[in-house]
Amino acid sequence: MAKRVLLICFLGLVFAFASADHSPLQDFCVAQAGNPKTVQANDFSFSGLHLPENTPNPVGSEVTPETVTHLAGLKTLGISMVRIDIAPWGINPPHTHSRATEIWLVLEGTLEVGFITSNPDNRLNSKILQKGDAFVSPQGLIHYQRNIGFGNAGTVAALGSQNPGVITIANVVFGSMPDISKDIFAKAFQVDKTIVGKIQSKF
Amino acid sequence: MAKRVLLICFLGLVFAFASADHSPLQDFCVAQAGNPKTVQANDFSFSGLHLPENTPNPVGSEVTPETVTHLAGLKTLGISMVRIDIAPWGINPPHTHSRATEIWLVLEGTLEVGFITSNPDNRLNSKILQKGDAFVSPQGLIHYQRNIGFGNAGTVAALGSQNPGVITIANVVFGSMPDISKDIFAKAFQVDKTIVGKIQSKF
Amino acid sequence: MAKRVLLICFLGLVFAFASADHSPLQDFCVAQAGNPKTVQANDFSFSGLHLPENTPNPVGSEVTPETVTHLAGLKTLGISMVRIDIAPWGINPPHTHSRATEIWLVLEGTLEVGFITSNPDNRLNSKILQKGDAFVSPQGLIHYQRNIGFGNAGTVAALGSQNPGVITIANVVFGSMPDISKDIFAKAFQVDKTIVGKIQSKF
Amino acid sequence: MAKRVLLICFLGLVFAFASADHSPLQDFCVAQAGNPKTVQANDFSFSGLHLPENTPNPVGSEVTPETVTHLAGLKTLGISMVRIDIAPWGINPPHTHSRATEIWLVLEGTLEVGFITSNPDNRLNSKILQKGDAFVSPQGLIHYQRNIGFGNAGTVAALGSQNPGVITIANVVFGSMPDISKDIFAKAFQVDKTIVGKIQSKF
Amino acid sequence: MAKRVLLICFLGLVFAFASADHSPLQDFCVAQAGNPKTVQANDFSFSGLHLPENTPNPVGSEVTPETVTHLAGLKTLGISMVRIDIAPWGINPPHTHSRATEIWLVLEGTLEVGFITSNPDNRLNSKILQKGDAFVSPQGLIHYQRNIGFGNAGTVAALGSQNPGVITIANVVFGSMPDISKDIFAKAFQVDKTIVGKIQSKF
Amino acid sequence: MAKRVLLICFLGLVFAFASADHSPLQDFCVAQAGNPKTVQANDFSFSGLHLPENTPNPVGSEVTPETVTHLAGLKTLGISMVRIDIAPWGINPPHTHSRATEIWLVLEGTLEVGFITSNPDNRLNSKILQKGDAFVSPQGLIHYQRNIGFGNAGTVAALGSQNPGVITIANVVFGSMPDISKDIFAKAFQVDKTIVGKIQSKF
Repeated sequence: MAKRVLLICFLGLVFAFASADHSPLQDFCVAQAGNPKTVQANDFSFSGLHLPENTPNPVGSEVTPETVTHLAGLKTLGISMVRIDIAPWGINPPHTHSRATEIWLVLEGTLEVGFITSNPDNRLNSKILQKGDAFVSPQGLIHYQRNIGFGNAGTVAALGSQNPGVITIANVVFGSMPDISKDIFAKAFQVDKTIVGKIQSKF
Repeated sequence: MAKRVLLICFLGLVFAFASADHSPLQDFCVAQAGNPKTVQANDFSFSGLHLPENTPNPVGSEVTPETVTHLAGLKTLGISMVRIDIAPWGINPPHTHSRATEIWLVLEGTLEVGFITSNPDNRLNSKILQKGDAFVSPQGLIHYQRNIGFGNAGTVAALGSQNPGVITIANVVFGSMPDISKDIFAKAFQVDKTIVGKIQSKF
Repeated sequence: MAKRVLLICFLGLVFAFASADHSPLQDFCVAQAGNPKTVQANDFSFSGLHLPENTPNPVGSEVTPETVTHLAGLKTLGISMVRIDIAPWGINPPHTHSRATEIWLVLEGTLEVGFITSNPDNRLNSKILQKGDAFVSPQGLIHYQRNIGFGNAGTVAALGSQNPGVITIANVVFGSMPDISKDIFAKAFQVDKTIVGKIQSKF
Repeated sequence: MAKRVLLICFLGLVFAFASADHSPLQDFCVAQAGNPKTVQANDFSFSGLHLPENTPNPVGSEVTPETVTHLAGLKTLGISMVRIDIAPWGINPPHTHSRATEIWLVLEGTLEVGFITSNPDNRLNSKILQKGDAFVSPQGLIHYQRNIGFGNAGTVAALGSQNPGVITIANVVFGSMPDISKDIFAKAFQVDKTIVGKIQSKF
Repeated sequence: MAKRVLLICFLGLVFAFASADHSPLQDFCVAQAGNPKTVQANDFSFSGLHLPENTPNPVGSEVTPETVTHLAGLKTLGISMVRIDIAPWGINPPHTHSRATEIWLVLEGTLEVGFITSNPDNRLNSKILQKGDAFVSPQGLIHYQRNIGFGNAGTVAALGSQNPGVITIANVVFGSMPDISKDIFAKAFQVDKTIVGKIQSKF
Repeated sequence: MAKRVLLICFLGLVFAFASADHSPLQDFCVAQAGNPKTVQANDFSFSGLHLPENTPNPVGSEVTPETVTHLAGLKTLGISMVRIDIAPWGINPPHTHSRATEIWLVLEGTLEVGFITSNPDNRLNSKILQKGDAFVSPQGLIHYQRNIGFGNAGTVAALGSQNPGVITIANVVFGSMPDISKDIFAKAFQVDKTIVGKIQSKF
């Protein structure tokens, strides 16, 4: 019977990704390609979250996710993890995870973090975090992190979904494929279309 | 027993708003202040969704919501409704509802609508809608509407939460209380701080 | 990675329909047969909800659903829509949706609508609706609509499930395949078996 | 801390009944009026399910529920139980539980049981059960039981909700308060209004 | 359309077991191998729960489950059933079901039953049950049953998951494959490793 | 309106703890005693997770939780965090969280970790972790950690519930209040009652 469950899970892993978080229906659901018998501790493990990553992108940060796409053992278990590295005065730019609340733990450095509540208040709750400090950003709210120290800042975060999704505001509004009409952003942000065009050209 | 359930619901209505959508535990949970016996059809009804509203705001649109805040009968039932009016070339600016998928139905006019997928694709799926056309924007994705016709445009939308929440991107990133640091947006949008300041001054 | 998610979703669309509403695990899950790259705005759109349908059936009404069976884009998103047309004095007969609350919006005409609470109260909450009025029928409760005006009545409704299910009382109790024993309905409705037989013969 | 959780639960028990089934947030949530310290095994226990009840009502059956209304220990736990007694040729008339699947176990006697699928098939799945037989009626579908033996029939059933709700078809359609218009049922069941009136007079 | 849903469910039954309990998306999801048309009442029925089973194992009890593994009709319906037989002074040893609350009903005999709350209280709630008595063990808590009568004891139980899972404490801690280090259990239970070794040798 | 939601949440915080994880109905639900206006960033933040705690207990480990009991901001958000310190050769003894999957991240030291699958396989999946390694223990399964290095070991863990619950096996089975009968454990673990008595005396 155990083998049958594994076989079912193996096939399920390949064929069916589209269900609800939490409340799993079996212990776990993971299998290596072609051979469901090879389930092992490594399917539930990953390494290197203590190592800072380079931060080569224009905003000065790098995100290293461990979601169900990277670790099959997370399937149906409703949680995932990520490491974020930020260079001095770099930012993890404003973004949202529509399917997960996030808790950050600062491993090193000094970060300003914040989230903004939904309409109509749009209230910013921000705080400066040091090593060992943690902060919760509620599900779906836009949040950011900024390194305000002299050295690199590193954090790990846990998120309440096997696949939380990331919507980076600037990328979505100015870098979509194809572009959204300049007219829309000129109105939404109440600026000239030429400014919108300039911004779009960078994404 | 029915009275007892109503009494419990009445108190629950006042005291406890903080649970999960869907899967209600009773037929419904609604009561007028002070007298649970007065539950009636009006608690489940609202009017006037056929009437265009004025669109006095700078973006040329007006949103008239019917959520659990406006209609107690929606409590625990996981759905709500909204009417949106947009003046010619006005927009319902890019926003997201982190707790709900939305379906729009065009009552009159011609609209361009679209949503953008999450990272890394940020793909825009847009379409021009006429009277009688409907469009689905998946839960948590940023979406917008633009009136591209000569007259007013009116739509009704249903959302899969009693309280879907609205996060209007421009308001959140440029109009939060207090302001987010100009530095963060200059980096995120890769523009001068002076431009960020100009935009913030309008929100 | 995006292609891989699409491929998984495409296969999931074909092979696995049996999971829980709400809390999706990805932006959406839709694909055309044979080619997951062809996801497009049309997968999230449908048309013609402003057009009255003929009402040729004996009860004088016609229901035009847009559920996940008709629109793949609704998969995992927990919502669907329907148009209902009712001829003068026709009815949308008493029925229930066990998986969804429903909100109707009257597009034209005058309707009497109502739902009945569960045991032991079985209280009817009914109301007369005009154009622009809306009404909520809580999940699982039996409800009906009757055109009490002089012209056709048209409504659209949103339902909180991608596949709400319809259980039309008269069809289920008198028109099942095979028939339920006459004896059961004679007892349940406290009438002669000959009357039960007459009613069954019409379904 | 334990006392605090109990106090919170005690108040929650009185004030807030309106949340979702399953996925509890604490071991359990139960308290006696006025003193949360008195939680005990009796809050999770009930007796007498082996004893046949009289079946005095017109349909020849009696239902003895043990839901959260009767046993506080069931709160947030998503399950309940019921005993059903049916006199020879009596019936448990067609009804539905919109919030629960039901499993019956026959303790004594011989029963015909069945459920009918939703539209458009309305297929009856029925079976004759003896002592020790069990049968599953899926969530929301209309089902019934009929004693077809010479002695009394007794069953216990488990339901997947702390408060499954009961919608007895005949009571709802012919016995609501106030009555539904005769015209509606004459159309829905395609019979004379006089027959509808006769049936209504019995409920 | 009905056939298509069945085909989808049939394939789903084979390929995808990994989703959440409750809130089904269709009436049910069951099919015989190779031919989805053969859905029938037997897919929702099982027999023999009135018959005592032998209790040949060292603890003097036998468990006869009816979960989704044994009865395809339970798929997506969030409930299952089990019969437990216990010889005089035999036990159903301490175990937990992490995915389900359980309700027992005593069919014959006299049982001591109990569950223990989580940290920090670890309070035992126990009770002696006779024929016709029922008892609820909340989701995830460790519980046991002991026959304290002179004859056999038989109970049926309903559980709030199609696949509740069983974690028998002694088997897991002393009988895992491979063994957990003796050192861990010597520390955890504060006994000599030689005692741990003796216990492990029996599992 | 925002104030009203806060007031409702404030009262809800005090009176109603008993609902389902995830799928919040508002941005968050937190308030200081007596004054809902004082919501602030500190309600979402905690400190000191980088600091090793003393490990004075007999098993050589200390657990420092940050759940909803400690941080009101976690309410309705379905996630929590914990720091675990283990002295050399100390253990975090076998235990389970019935409401949450757990991910550990090793901050310092060398740990052996493992979880055991449910019946009938009871398969141990274990692994040695170094600084920067992470490991997932699926919801409800019994797991443990052992420091096998020369210095202290420190980990942080995220759990998918605001209140995951802890069931430490040894404490529950040998240290419940009141004690479980020796006879039950003698049978369950297949040892002499005198050994059971010795073990019970230590808890």
